[in-house]
Amino acid sequence: MIFYIHPTNKYMNLKDFKSTKERREYIEKSRKIKLDNTARILIEDEKDINCENLIGASAFPLGVAGPLSIDGKDYFIPLATTEGALVASVSRGCKAINLSGGTKSFIENVGVTRGPVFETSGLEESMKLKKWLKDNFNLLKTEAEKTSSHLKLKKLGTRIAGTYVYVRFYFDTQEAMGMNMVTIATEKISQFIQKNTKVRCLAVSGNFCIDKKPAWLNFISGRGKKAWAEAVLKREVVKDVLKTTPEEFFEVWLSKCMIGSAMSGSLGFNAHFANVVAAFFAATGQDMAHTVEGSMGVTTSKVLENGDLYVSIYMPSVMIGTVGGGTKLKIKQEALSIIGAENSIELAKVLSGAVLAGEISLIASLAEGTLAKTHQKLGR
Amino acid sequence: MIFYIHPTNKYMNLKDFKSTKERREYIEKSRKIKLDNTARILIEDEKDINCENLIGASAFPLGVAGPLSIDGKDYFIPLATTEGALVASVSRGCKAINLSGGTKSFIENVGVTRGPVFETSGLEESMKLKKWLKDNFNLLKTEAEKTSSHLKLKKLGTRIAGTYVYVRFYFDTQEAMGMNMVTIATEKISQFIQKNTKVRCLAVSGNFCIDKKPAWLNFISGRGKKAWAEAVLKREVVKDVLKTTPEEFFEVWLSKCMIGSAMSGSLGFNAHFANVVAAFFAATGQDMAHTVEGSMGVTTSKVLENGDLYVSIYMPSVMIGTVGGGTKLKIKQEALSIIGAENSIELAKVLSGAVLAGEISLIASLAEGTLAKTHQKLGR
Amino acid sequence: MIFYIHPTNKYMNLKDFKSTKERREYIEKSRKIKLDNTARILIEDEKDINCENLIGASAFPLGVAGPLSIDGKDYFIPLATTEGALVASVSRGCKAINLSGGTKSFIENVGVTRGPVFETSGLEESMKLKKWLKDNFNLLKTEAEKTSSHLKLKKLGTRIAGTYVYVRFYFDTQEAMGMNMVTIATEKISQFIQKNTKVRCLAVSGNFCIDKKPAWLNFISGRGKKAWAEAVLKREVVKDVLKTTPEEFFEVWLSKCMIGSAMSGSLGFNAHFANVVAAFFAATGQDMAHTVEGSMGVTTSKVLENGDLYVSIYMPSVMIGTVGGGTKLKIKQEALSIIGAENSIELAKVLSGAVLAGEISLIASLAEGTLAKTHQKLGR
Amino acid sequence: MIFYIHPTNKYMNLKDFKSTKERREYIEKSRKIKLDNTARILIEDEKDINCENLIGASAFPLGVAGPLSIDGKDYFIPLATTEGALVASVSRGCKAINLSGGTKSFIENVGVTRGPVFETSGLEESMKLKKWLKDNFNLLKTEAEKTSSHLKLKKLGTRIAGTYVYVRFYFDTQEAMGMNMVTIATEKISQFIQKNTKVRCLAVSGNFCIDKKPAWLNFISGRGKKAWAEAVLKREVVKDVLKTTPEEFFEVWLSKCMIGSAMSGSLGFNAHFANVVAAFFAATGQDMAHTVEGSMGVTTSKVLENGDLYVSIYMPSVMIGTVGGGTKLKIKQEALSIIGAENSIELAKVLSGAVLAGEISLIASLAEGTLAKTHQKLGR
Repeated sequence: MIFYIHPTNKYMNLKDFKSTKERREYIEKSRKIKLDNTARILIEDEKDINCENLIGASAFPLGVAGPLSIDGKDYFIPLATTEGALVASVSRGCKAINLSGGTKSFIENVGVTRGPVFETSGLEESMKLKKWLKDNFNLLKTEAEKTSSHLKLKKLGTRIAGTYVYVRFYFDTQEAMGMNMVTIATEKISQFIQKNTKVRCLAVSGNFCIDKKPAWLNFISGRGKKAWAEAVLKREVVKDVLKTTPEEFFEVWLSKCMIGSAMSGSLGFNAHFANVVAAFFAATGQDMAHTVEGSMGVTTSKVLENGDLYVSIYMPSVMIGTVGGGTKLKIKQEALSIIGAENSIELAKVLSGAVLAGEISLIASLAEGTLAKTHQKLGR
Repeated sequence: MIFYIHPTNKYMNLKDFKSTKERREYIEKSRKIKLDNTARILIEDEKDINCENLIGASAFPLGVAGPLSIDGKDYFIPLATTEGALVASVSRGCKAINLSGGTKSFIENVGVTRGPVFETSGLEESMKLKKWLKDNFNLLKTEAEKTSSHLKLKKLGTRIAGTYVYVRFYFDTQEAMGMNMVTIATEKISQFIQKNTKVRCLAVSGNFCIDKKPAWLNFISGRGKKAWAEAVLKREVVKDVLKTTPEEFFEVWLSKCMIGSAMSGSLGFNAHFANVVAAFFAATGQDMAHTVEGSMGVTTSKVLENGDLYVSIYMPSVMIGTVGGGTKLKIKQEALSIIGAENSIELAKVLSGAVLAGEISLIASLAEGTLAKTHQKLGR
Repeated sequence: MIFYIHPTNKYMNLKDFKSTKERREYIEKSRKIKLDNTARILIEDEKDINCENLIGASAFPLGVAGPLSIDGKDYFIPLATTEGALVASVSRGCKAINLSGGTKSFIENVGVTRGPVFETSGLEESMKLKKWLKDNFNLLKTEAEKTSSHLKLKKLGTRIAGTYVYVRFYFDTQEAMGMNMVTIATEKISQFIQKNTKVRCLAVSGNFCIDKKPAWLNFISGRGKKAWAEAVLKREVVKDVLKTTPEEFFEVWLSKCMIGSAMSGSLGFNAHFANVVAAFFAATGQDMAHTVEGSMGVTTSKVLENGDLYVSIYMPSVMIGTVGGGTKLKIKQEALSIIGAENSIELAKVLSGAVLAGEISLIASLAEGTLAKTHQKLGR
Repeated sequence: MIFYIHPTNKYMNLKDFKSTKERREYIEKSRKIKLDNTARILIEDEKDINCENLIGASAFPLGVAGPLSIDGKDYFIPLATTEGALVASVSRGCKAINLSGGTKSFIENVGVTRGPVFETSGLEESMKLKKWLKDNFNLLKTEAEKTSSHLKLKKLGTRIAGTYVYVRFYFDTQEAMGMNMVTIATEKISQFIQKNTKVRCLAVSGNFCIDKKPAWLNFISGRGKKAWAEAVLKREVVKDVLKTTPEEFFEVWLSKCMIGSAMSGSLGFNAHFANVVAAFFAATGQDMAHTVEGSMGVTTSKVLENGDLYVSIYMPSVMIGTVGGGTKLKIKQEALSIIGAENSIELAKVLSGAVLAGEISLIASLAEGTLAKTHQKLGR
């Protein structure tokens, strides 16, 4: 058992190494492997990096799609991915959109949520707690906002199941995605609630947030930001660039994104939001696990009376920021600088445009019947 | 509008640059930015990389959790993440598991799926097609397996809604995650079906796959691999390492992973599968968008009669491979070598163990009430 | 083709008969059958009855469970059902509850909802409509309330997917379940919106109500009334009356109502809400299709420190009334008089208590292992 | 407290009365009410009735819709309901279908399911049990079929979450809906499994059946019978009978049944399956709580190239029978005789046709904008 340092059933503790280099070399020696590339690309000051037991870094190829005209401004879209055809596909969607006059995007800042669970002695106390939370919202707000000047408590919602009281706090976290500050604020609030109501907080996250899990609560009530984008694709552009017709596009959209998703019991009534979200998040330093929330949502399409094709996307739960978390890494800052968004709202707009472009291109490919062929050429 | 090359409403085509360097420099010039880090870490032979419009690479800090004893063998777990506390948390879970005798894991190879949609003239033809597909399974299998020697058609399932016929093909893709080969095989089959039945294939993917979207079909029928892992944590280990008790752990699990997820309409009855899946996938070259499938599943826990704590995880849809796709990148190969799994089944086992460790540590943290404190220290 | 009256491909129109008797006799003659019982039980003045093409009536056996002590008051519970063992089972639950001090119930009047869908020219107009609806809420309220003095518009919620705008109107309908008056009010509002915004209403119900379909929107946001009930069952009562122990009860509840429902992708985390809801609705003149909404919800249970058993139920969407619809039938009034509820809130309380009793008895039966035996004796 | 018979905290036991009459009179006296109508309609031999604590019966108005031409045969459709406009609406749908050549229907007998939950010592035993169940299917079949000559075990499916093993048994129950015989058979099988594997059955129903709760498992895998029906409505019939156009119908269907249901997180992608199912079940003696399963499913529509309108319905989970349960009541037999179905498959066909007619009429009403007006006239 090579990993045991001494016989008293203790593993060597990887966190005890003094440097990344020593830790990496220990792994190389233990496993009899070489980690040359992993070693080479460590490009940040180690102490800035949010990752324990660091041994180096892993790389994703970074491509750029676009430019894409969103609300009259042009954006390059950095995508970090190992999925062949993705960047090309989004680019093709961008081209079709640009040639048709660009996309419009709308963002609503729902707020980042944490949902602790409290345990009462029964329904009577549960109802009292619900009322207390409503009546004392301003006190909770004050408590929460003590923890950070970048955070505001926007609202709360309460659900009761017997002795369990779930509270969903919605925070404005400015330009940060903000889960960490939201957790700290919620812990503060929860302690305040415990102290003042004598009701115990079972867990600062009771899956009523609900973080990084597919869930109708996020779809229906939103989480982070809601994002919409749309484009009216000219009939000839659909033909020339996308190699299909508005009618065929519509047919594929209907049978796949609507009826197909219904038959599958899905929360994603779309073609592949998750692909674009994951690659965009990887490039720009977002939390990759929030790809889950980003995969939910609805694509709509319609053949207009003049024969043009209308396409829109709706993402109910975009967890995104321009500061904090992974965005602090210099290499993620570079990707953000490629976009040039001034704030998280603008960043969400660019994501929504990229997702729209991805939907347009993939659905068109399916309509044309070239999905497999495209992957065969680029993806292998 | 800096991105327009000439006035006829044509964008410069990023794919027309001859090299990554030229493309990157064009972006730098256009956006008046510097991409020094992005440039520095391009470490592969460019032509091997599955990413169009390449301008360089993006990095993720790579930490190592573990070792973790799975089925009697010890594994290091490479995790690429920017989420502070994640590697530390998984490591703590590993420690608790190891000190209790390790984890057992079980994998079932369900098969990777593609679900095309066909359009008939009505129910009679739909029913006929369903029967034809069943009767001609062996012919379809032969067709499919012409496209790759690494792929076997295992079974199919059919669902009908009026003129729409959805067929779900399950493939054994050996050591590859295999979506690309599965798409190619399905296109081949679909053409064969079209030719022989005169029924039109509307789209090679009719969201009955269902790929990269949260969906009950994947939860209930499985996709890729089903993975289970479990551990019996000794009472004193729960106390010493996890700073909580089996009873408190159980209470948090019940109120959060079960009742909380029910109240949220979730497909994730767990604490944070997605965090571990995303970091493990990023390190080992998996398709990041499959984090969506990986976020589904159920954690169970139970206080045993002797006071020990039983914890298990069940992941119904793990899309994972040791060859193909992103795993071809040298840097992902290094991470895979850290693990040393001999095949995709073993790799899935390690993931399942890591996910179990993550669940144990996070639920314990919540029980202890230290979630916010931990993030405050490590995450910011 | 016996049903054709003359050769121009016209069916005899059943609504053209002058009396129920003539219509019934026509059916008897056409089909060569006898409908003696159907004829016998027509007991109301025909013109009062909300049913077209009337030929008589159908009967359900009516049993009475209870009494059940709810909030200190005793209620008999009329249940119309053909499911053997149901009344006996609810009665057994009532007995266990009564011997333990009764149940407490809480009702929240969420409001009955209608959710029309509007169609705009694109996202910009969709966003404008959303704002207009918010800004003009009081005008909409005034319009709505012109249609009935028994109805108040409480609030609205809007969701946008491209050109589709879904609006959910919540109404207080006093003692009526109120779908009809709510539909009329929503049509009025929709016309007002159309007139003032020039946005077309596609359908007065856009399934954003969402009426008589299982849906997370109703679970999460509530519809009609939310109802909770709970009881603390004494340990010896669990043993004597329910023939099981609190621990066994808890185990069955956890594995069935929580984990089992999770594995099934259910919106019903309970044992059999729908049985009691359907029988209660049939007895008291509610709309039977609202059994669908009533089947959703969560049962919780817990073994208390003193060894007693806590059980609660939560129903997020109870569509119920004491006036209007089927409650106008004299025979339904009799069943309502058995209960003696003064208003729809009290009626919902009695339902919630009955549902709790049903949960307690069935879960206990399963724990005891006598489910099949009970049905064998009573149900066949 | 009028209901207490004597002071030792015992309620009068309603089951102790010797006759329905005495029981009813006791209730009348206790509550100071009159139950004249309830008393009048008791039309069956009491001892045949599956209802405990009987005090009489409750009535539903019975209307007849149709005739409807299904697979070339004409059927009257008895509907027991208190919802004004329902029978008229279904009749209108029938008329439109008949004038267009009738409906085609297809039924697949999936099988009635019971899903017990077993508890093992851990994953290893869980996996063993799964294998054992597969290997010993024929033994289980033999055991099951000992309990009734009307029942066959068709197949089983197993799901594992840690120590919990869920098994879904599918039974052919011939002409009965069959839940009771299925429960008895499953209890028998479960005892056999317990005896032979030493694994404990926690509950004969572990909500993996899943009975009378909305659930994706039933939608995806089916339960009872799957039913489809379709019609091609002539363009002029749509105009003359339904007062709308195929294009408007399609638009309402798309925005309501597909996108609206998606936005609501529904398992019902239809207009109002539940209304027709509930009324048909009430008339024909089915278990009313199975309205829940019947509310799930998908309506599709399409404007054909010649301008006609295609409409179909798909019901994945129809729990229906012609013998057993409520169908034994004479009055339900009369309603069944109105239909004249020879077996449960034919009965399901008639239901599917009625549901199709209901969808056609309601969606057309919405398209015409007359929903509220219709209810105003007929429903109040």
